[in-house]
Amino acid sequence: MHELGVVHRGVVRPDRRAVDALKPFGVSTVHEAMGRLGLMRPYIRPVYPGAAMCGTAVTVLLQPGDNWMLHVAVEQLQPGDVLVAACTTECEDGFFGELLATSVRARGGMGLVIDGGCRDVTALREMDFPVFSRAVNSKGTVKATLGSVNVPVVCANALVRPGDVVVADADGVVVVPADRVAEVAEASRRREDLEEEKRARLAAGELGLDMYAMREPLEAAGLRYVD
Amino acid sequence: MHELGVVHRGVVRPDRRAVDALKPFGVSTVHEAMGRLGLMRPYIRPVYPGAAMCGTAVTVLLQPGDNWMLHVAVEQLQPGDVLVAACTTECEDGFFGELLATSVRARGGMGLVIDGGCRDVTALREMDFPVFSRAVNSKGTVKATLGSVNVPVVCANALVRPGDVVVADADGVVVVPADRVAEVAEASRRREDLEEEKRARLAAGELGLDMYAMREPLEAAGLRYVD
Amino acid sequence: MHELGVVHRGVVRPDRRAVDALKPFGVSTVHEAMGRLGLMRPYIRPVYPGAAMCGTAVTVLLQPGDNWMLHVAVEQLQPGDVLVAACTTECEDGFFGELLATSVRARGGMGLVIDGGCRDVTALREMDFPVFSRAVNSKGTVKATLGSVNVPVVCANALVRPGDVVVADADGVVVVPADRVAEVAEASRRREDLEEEKRARLAAGELGLDMYAMREPLEAAGLRYVD
Amino acid sequence: MHELGVVHRGVVRPDRRAVDALKPFGVSTVHEAMGRLGLMRPYIRPVYPGAAMCGTAVTVLLQPGDNWMLHVAVEQLQPGDVLVAACTTECEDGFFGELLATSVRARGGMGLVIDGGCRDVTALREMDFPVFSRAVNSKGTVKATLGSVNVPVVCANALVRPGDVVVADADGVVVVPADRVAEVAEASRRREDLEEEKRARLAAGELGLDMYAMREPLEAAGLRYVD
Amino acid sequence: MHELGVVHRGVVRPDRRAVDALKPFGVSTVHEAMGRLGLMRPYIRPVYPGAAMCGTAVTVLLQPGDNWMLHVAVEQLQPGDVLVAACTTECEDGFFGELLATSVRARGGMGLVIDGGCRDVTALREMDFPVFSRAVNSKGTVKATLGSVNVPVVCANALVRPGDVVVADADGVVVVPADRVAEVAEASRRREDLEEEKRARLAAGELGLDMYAMREPLEAAGLRYVD
Amino acid sequence: MHELGVVHRGVVRPDRRAVDALKPFGVSTVHEAMGRLGLMRPYIRPVYPGAAMCGTAVTVLLQPGDNWMLHVAVEQLQPGDVLVAACTTECEDGFFGELLATSVRARGGMGLVIDGGCRDVTALREMDFPVFSRAVNSKGTVKATLGSVNVPVVCANALVRPGDVVVADADGVVVVPADRVAEVAEASRRREDLEEEKRARLAAGELGLDMYAMREPLEAAGLRYVD
Repeated sequence: MHELGVVHRGVVRPDRRAVDALKPFGVSTVHEAMGRLGLMRPYIRPVYPGAAMCGTAVTVLLQPGDNWMLHVAVEQLQPGDVLVAACTTECEDGFFGELLATSVRARGGMGLVIDGGCRDVTALREMDFPVFSRAVNSKGTVKATLGSVNVPVVCANALVRPGDVVVADADGVVVVPADRVAEVAEASRRREDLEEEKRARLAAGELGLDMYAMREPLEAAGLRYVD
Repeated sequence: MHELGVVHRGVVRPDRRAVDALKPFGVSTVHEAMGRLGLMRPYIRPVYPGAAMCGTAVTVLLQPGDNWMLHVAVEQLQPGDVLVAACTTECEDGFFGELLATSVRARGGMGLVIDGGCRDVTALREMDFPVFSRAVNSKGTVKATLGSVNVPVVCANALVRPGDVVVADADGVVVVPADRVAEVAEASRRREDLEEEKRARLAAGELGLDMYAMREPLEAAGLRYVD
Repeated sequence: MHELGVVHRGVVRPDRRAVDALKPFGVSTVHEAMGRLGLMRPYIRPVYPGAAMCGTAVTVLLQPGDNWMLHVAVEQLQPGDVLVAACTTECEDGFFGELLATSVRARGGMGLVIDGGCRDVTALREMDFPVFSRAVNSKGTVKATLGSVNVPVVCANALVRPGDVVVADADGVVVVPADRVAEVAEASRRREDLEEEKRARLAAGELGLDMYAMREPLEAAGLRYVD
Repeated sequence: MHELGVVHRGVVRPDRRAVDALKPFGVSTVHEAMGRLGLMRPYIRPVYPGAAMCGTAVTVLLQPGDNWMLHVAVEQLQPGDVLVAACTTECEDGFFGELLATSVRARGGMGLVIDGGCRDVTALREMDFPVFSRAVNSKGTVKATLGSVNVPVVCANALVRPGDVVVADADGVVVVPADRVAEVAEASRRREDLEEEKRARLAAGELGLDMYAMREPLEAAGLRYVD
Repeated sequence: MHELGVVHRGVVRPDRRAVDALKPFGVSTVHEAMGRLGLMRPYIRPVYPGAAMCGTAVTVLLQPGDNWMLHVAVEQLQPGDVLVAACTTECEDGFFGELLATSVRARGGMGLVIDGGCRDVTALREMDFPVFSRAVNSKGTVKATLGSVNVPVVCANALVRPGDVVVADADGVVVVPADRVAEVAEASRRREDLEEEKRARLAAGELGLDMYAMREPLEAAGLRYVD
Repeated sequence: MHELGVVHRGVVRPDRRAVDALKPFGVSTVHEAMGRLGLMRPYIRPVYPGAAMCGTAVTVLLQPGDNWMLHVAVEQLQPGDVLVAACTTECEDGFFGELLATSVRARGGMGLVIDGGCRDVTALREMDFPVFSRAVNSKGTVKATLGSVNVPVVCANALVRPGDVVVADADGVVVVPADRVAEVAEASRRREDLEEEKRARLAAGELGLDMYAMREPLEAAGLRYVD
């Protein structure tokens, strides 16, 4: 949170199999399984339909209009990582494009979440390189001022620590703390099993009012039916 | 407008054939045919490309972060209905997702307009269940506070009464009062016939300036041409 | 900038071949090649995925809720032109739709950039008629108040003079002054050749840190690595 | 809701003493007393600090960039009325300024709520003429297209019928239906008496936790205290 | 418009008496007198109530998060000038504060318009140094990348050329081209004389409907009165 | 970050004298002294001019439309504390008003920062009870769903831990980690002494270009002066 000009190299990532166990689940399932915490603000959107990813965070703290630290961060990537880029202020410049995506992929990186802008979105779509950003913007950036890499950052109002797991899809972006990955994967699995059963009952015409036993509490709360 | 904690059951829907007569027309045609009234604010957008619907409104008044009344409303749906959900305040939480959509469909409901957020948008797209919302958001909701069902609501700045017809497509969402449905369908038909003819003339190179006889009023208004 | 009620007919367009030389390049490349000037604000977005165009500007200054001058402007179009519509105030009404698109195309026009709203977007997509706008909105407009055609306008914070070249794609909209078209096309070509080479090196695993020789300036700026 | 080009003259206003009984109360008190309905969206703000008013609504439906109907509406004002101006679309032009305020006041009108822009705000402040608007904007308007006067309108997402009472202060704007004015004034009085007592107890150091008997329900909901 | 890294020294300012002739008039009067052109977008607001100014523009083109060029610009100020700062992208950082204001004032500069953020607003208010900005923000800036001084800029969607006159008050900011200053001052005077007379008639109870002779055109447009 | 339904009682506050040492400094000074970290997003604004405060944080995590936990939090306040309220989602309801302010003050609390709405702002101003919020909104809240008290929260994109010091004034809100308070106070003092000297030199007419020795680096960067 409180450092500029630093690159931390010794990120401890959660066990790969634990991360993989999270992959089958969507953001909304994971977010519920976590107890409804860790969600980024919904202004972060995929830059093309179908973009989705799940990986361990290498964090970057950017300065406005400056993508120097993204180049520094790429070197810190390991296979299965995703870049999570916060900025010291609100800035929608195009910090990231096709060349950086090429470099991230060459290092085994999986994608990017950025509280900023992104460009070359047609190329990113063709590469199927998932980016979740607050804006699409051709405006390029300079390389002049230090930020940091692998420090805790606040990205779109969510705290992200290096090594946390980031799950992103059409519903948004959620951050799973590194030490909760296995537990959340398990809770996601349970939740999905439950939902499968509920879906079948609702599809068969049962009402949520009955399935969730809501009629009594609704009446107790004073709900009146009028013909 | 002015009731909380009430469910009205006796909604009078317009004649089914009258509603069906509106279905061939897009939102922009219907809105013009109504005399340019009844349009929701344009921040309401389809959650996937191609989403479109036309049906009779079952209205819901929600409380922020609370989707209890959506479950209550589902029971009131009849085939051909759409849910129209307003909120007592601005809230972009994910009030609605795949399970509720399954339940709506099982009751014959056609889709949802919500002045709030929606989640599970990949699943909704796969189901081709049209939702028009102000946001996509994984954030789930509680079931704790009463709103109402089938009261007049203001949704995205448009008044919607239970039984009004809602037409929604890529251009937006328009509300046709129940007692004007037949008239508006007829006016939409006339308008489309006229547009067909205009389109042909414009495609052949005729200018709007001539087709709409604008040259004289433009000159009267003082328009000058300079070489 | 400072005229209402005027149509300038004698627009000098840059040489057609010079304009054609710009066509292979995307907005982000052209914007960089121009020295990072001339970009419209990123709230201007394509109304359907894949929309792209490159043409010479016929400019329009609109009044809020009034599209009279778009009809006037269509007469001034020549093959290869694009309409660029600014407004005297912020207004997201649907100034433009299928009929006007039909007319623009019949005159050889290629598309539209509008600091306002647009409707009939499903039809525009089917026609593959590219529109870049700040909103999608069914709300139609009147024909009552004069603006101007082919005066310099400020559209989404970018100055556009009649005859300037407008390049638009998924990354945004950039304006190339008429007298810089050839030079910018050439610079775009050089830039793309360079990027091709860089892409290959990055794809092969070389780091931006090394390719751009950033390690020394980063160290000079005080970057510290911590294990 | 569904008429353009009409002026209704026969507005029935609630009894003057009933309206006067509402005047001592602020917006937040009245909104609570109404059961938390009727509040405009909070983007409507006073144009100067201290602006406040309470009066019966003469409603206006405006077209974007056009203030013709405000002039029509002024003739319909009676002493104690306030103008409530909605617009068929979102528009922040300066529909209203010092001259109209002078005219409104000469007719006994008390102020304006407008889902649009306002200008001459320094003069309005000097006149102490309360205006609640969505924007301050010098941009003037034309007089070319019909709207309506004294039809029900939706203003900032609240339904307002001619003769409804509008209460506005630093907290926002609330609409009291004409037939509920006396009841809401009475409920406001009761609420304020209660608040007076609560304020004294809280000022003396009693906790809300105890005064509202929250400890038990909090515990039942599962709240844990950790040292 | 199209230069970075340049400072133009030879700005021709309009005659001082012509500028002084504009000073008595507010932004709304001047904007009308200019024919309703030259207004900045209304998101530019004074940082304290009562801020107002009228002076000749020294223009600055800033880079995001970087106020280097403001220091360069201060040297170019002459008594009676105002700084007008545009940015190559949207950025709300605090580019300007008390120290720069002190320096501007020492050079005879009168104030600042900035399409960006400003800080130290309490001190600016105490100094009565008028600033019109899009945001208040403590976030400071670096000094690393070149922009330009005294080139034409687009600020909040208005074109400003060095030497143009900028008038700013509670209603907004308007730009008067250097070669129109005398004419606009005269038109402002005429307009104000007219308004004085109109105000008196309206205050005496005459209706705008009669004073502006609107009854006939309203009837022609189809306005109906209903009792 | 990752707990709901918990109240931590054992908050360690920094030494009172260290906190007091921060009080003389404004937000912009403190933010610079911290190395430009810890600033909340600038959408958090004082609800009345002149509001300012400096105190130790008691944090609250709210649910949308629900202020239950604010009542829980008040019991945890000690003299010199400020409430810092985050929300699990974006919500601008009026979570806080005069009664809660009375209770906070009775406990020795100094004010509130809330990433949500606030009401009774006229009363708050009369009490001179500083509130910094994202909105003013009459809309009240319910008491139905648990959040937490004295857990780390992200408020307006800034991480706040219980016991951190919050400094707020017209420029915004900055968070000083509890363990850096003394150091930041000292750095603020040094910075202000330096600024005092700079202000005097600038007031005497010295240019920033000379005082900061910028001429050489500007020339090295390629800045050209043109007459």
